[in-house]
Amino acid sequence: MSEHITLSLEDVRDLSESILSDNGFNSAHAQAITDIIYTNQLGDCHSHGLYRLFMCTESIRSGRVSGTAEPTIVDAGPAVVRADANDGISLLAMKAAMPLLIEKAKKNGVAALAINRCFHFSALWPEVEMLSEAGLAGMAMLPSHAWVAPAGGKRGLLGTNPFAFSWPRHNQAPFTFDFATSQFARGEIELYRRAGKPLPEGVAIDQNGQPTTDAEAALNGAMLTFGGHKGSALSLMIELMAGPLIDDLTSKESMDAAGGKPEAPYHGEIILAFDPNMLSGGRAAQNSERAERLFADVIDQGARLPSQRRQAAQAYNTQRQAVEIPQALYNDLQQLKTSP
Amino acid sequence: MSEHITLSLEDVRDLSESILSDNGFNSAHAQAITDIIYTNQLGDCHSHGLYRLFMCTESIRSGRVSGTAEPTIVDAGPAVVRADANDGISLLAMKAAMPLLIEKAKKNGVAALAINRCFHFSALWPEVEMLSEAGLAGMAMLPSHAWVAPAGGKRGLLGTNPFAFSWPRHNQAPFTFDFATSQFARGEIELYRRAGKPLPEGVAIDQNGQPTTDAEAALNGAMLTFGGHKGSALSLMIELMAGPLIDDLTSKESMDAAGGKPEAPYHGEIILAFDPNMLSGGRAAQNSERAERLFADVIDQGARLPSQRRQAAQAYNTQRQAVEIPQALYNDLQQLKTSP
Repeated sequence: MSEHITLSLEDVRDLSESILSDNGFNSAHAQAITDIIYTNQLGDCHSHGLYRLFMCTESIRSGRVSGTAEPTIVDAGPAVVRADANDGISLLAMKAAMPLLIEKAKKNGVAALAINRCFHFSALWPEVEMLSEAGLAGMAMLPSHAWVAPAGGKRGLLGTNPFAFSWPRHNQAPFTFDFATSQFARGEIELYRRAGKPLPEGVAIDQNGQPTTDAEAALNGAMLTFGGHKGSALSLMIELMAGPLIDDLTSKESMDAAGGKPEAPYHGEIILAFDPNMLSGGRAAQNSERAERLFADVIDQGARLPSQRRQAAQAYNTQRQAVEIPQALYNDLQQLKTSP
Repeated sequence: MSEHITLSLEDVRDLSESILSDNGFNSAHAQAITDIIYTNQLGDCHSHGLYRLFMCTESIRSGRVSGTAEPTIVDAGPAVVRADANDGISLLAMKAAMPLLIEKAKKNGVAALAINRCFHFSALWPEVEMLSEAGLAGMAMLPSHAWVAPAGGKRGLLGTNPFAFSWPRHNQAPFTFDFATSQFARGEIELYRRAGKPLPEGVAIDQNGQPTTDAEAALNGAMLTFGGHKGSALSLMIELMAGPLIDDLTSKESMDAAGGKPEAPYHGEIILAFDPNMLSGGRAAQNSERAERLFADVIDQGARLPSQRRQAAQAYNTQRQAVEIPQALYNDLQQLKTSP
């Protein structure tokens, strides 16, 4: 018997903003964070919706995350924006820099946004979908903490290093994916431990670098990347692209700096934007049709496009102007408020 | 007992150039193709070395590939180069456009090269290593033919869609990888068929969309991507980035147009270049050291960096100024010559 509570979309926003304000985020941060928490909750992405308010409040209460930091947006080159979050959560810097990234991509054909010195707790699909809403293709990546071993290795070095991509479509939800390059998310392994269930093979190694299906041993050892040496190579690329390329931390440096606290990881993020019009020599419309035939061929053979389930939930919840969350989560969230 | 023959590096170049010239490639094409065949042979990448001369000659003899096409290089935007191969092999267009791509990346921070209407037979690591030799990070991708099913699908739609990346390192070979997003290369499955050996699980499905370990059934059915739905998503991204984004064919369109001929596939390619100096706010040197610590941490735990074996072969063969190839390959290559 799972008890749920229905919240209006306005309730979701109000709940998120009031918890964030109560805990010391100024109005600009509270709104930027709420935008993303709201978008995730609307898509029934519970792990990245209201649930993330626990991590946000924990992060600011520890004193390391600034709730008032003004991001510094720098026009760092014809096709480069650099956004220094100045120790705030990434999302205000991302929101503030996004218009310039879009402008630069449309003017130059390709552009990059480096977000630096930010705490990061969110999924990447909202930012790449901001780009596809603007008619651009978008790619995003970032490190995390050194929980994942490289292929053939014995200990954690790489982050769960997510990679996201979005492609604009006319009059319908974009083609989007957003996946961790680790085989499993860290939270999934924690759920296996709590449930006392063995992990599948190939997900983790123990402290001695030996394969394990024991969740506890996995958490003390290291996770593995998806796709063997190919996934491992991709994860190393993400370390480089969202770390040294943009003057920011690798997953190992980020974890060393954090000292094991249960906060949002602190590091950088890179977002790339591509203009289909300039890159196609002005034939974006014809090529959009070509992409639609590709998507139709996926669906015709009974396969699913990534994000279809989430996008369907977004449409459904938008139409009914409400979401459902577990009653227990709602009750716990009330405890995060400090005002009556 | 395998018989091998030792060729001087000059012999490799001469053999490649003379076969290409004899078969109708003009001097510019023969040199651009030879540069890449030579580089692969130097790294003992036998499948993409002199062996590829069979595909090159087959492609030009069929009449579809032009051996004299002049590529058209267009400055298509501040950060975009478009190179129309005009139905030639991709490599002359790539070589001709590369200096402008490098210039644009250094000027703007990021830049893209779209190569269009080309026949393609080569590995991608040489082009991304041209970028890392110029001090840039490089990424490249392209479709192929629709041999690979999307995750959850029943039939071929995606190409083997390779993805390559390179990162510049001081005084040593760059960090580079270049992998197919299919679980296996098509040629590997053909080798299993010839050997009458069963395929591993998870590599292919048969004509009815059912998992198979039979190589013949796999070749009549479809291959699978590496890494399940994540690899499939990545492969779809590559279709979009190197197809509709740059006004060129998807793997399905390319295969439909080819009509099953054993030629190099015809499609586009996208190459992205990133300037570590501009993207890091002028702190490329410090960040190069950060990347070196990452690589050292990979090696310290007994893991290997991608391409280490190939790069060691390149160094060894360069030092001895010679390569070894099978005598049988050498004999077969003589048959491709038409002049005495």
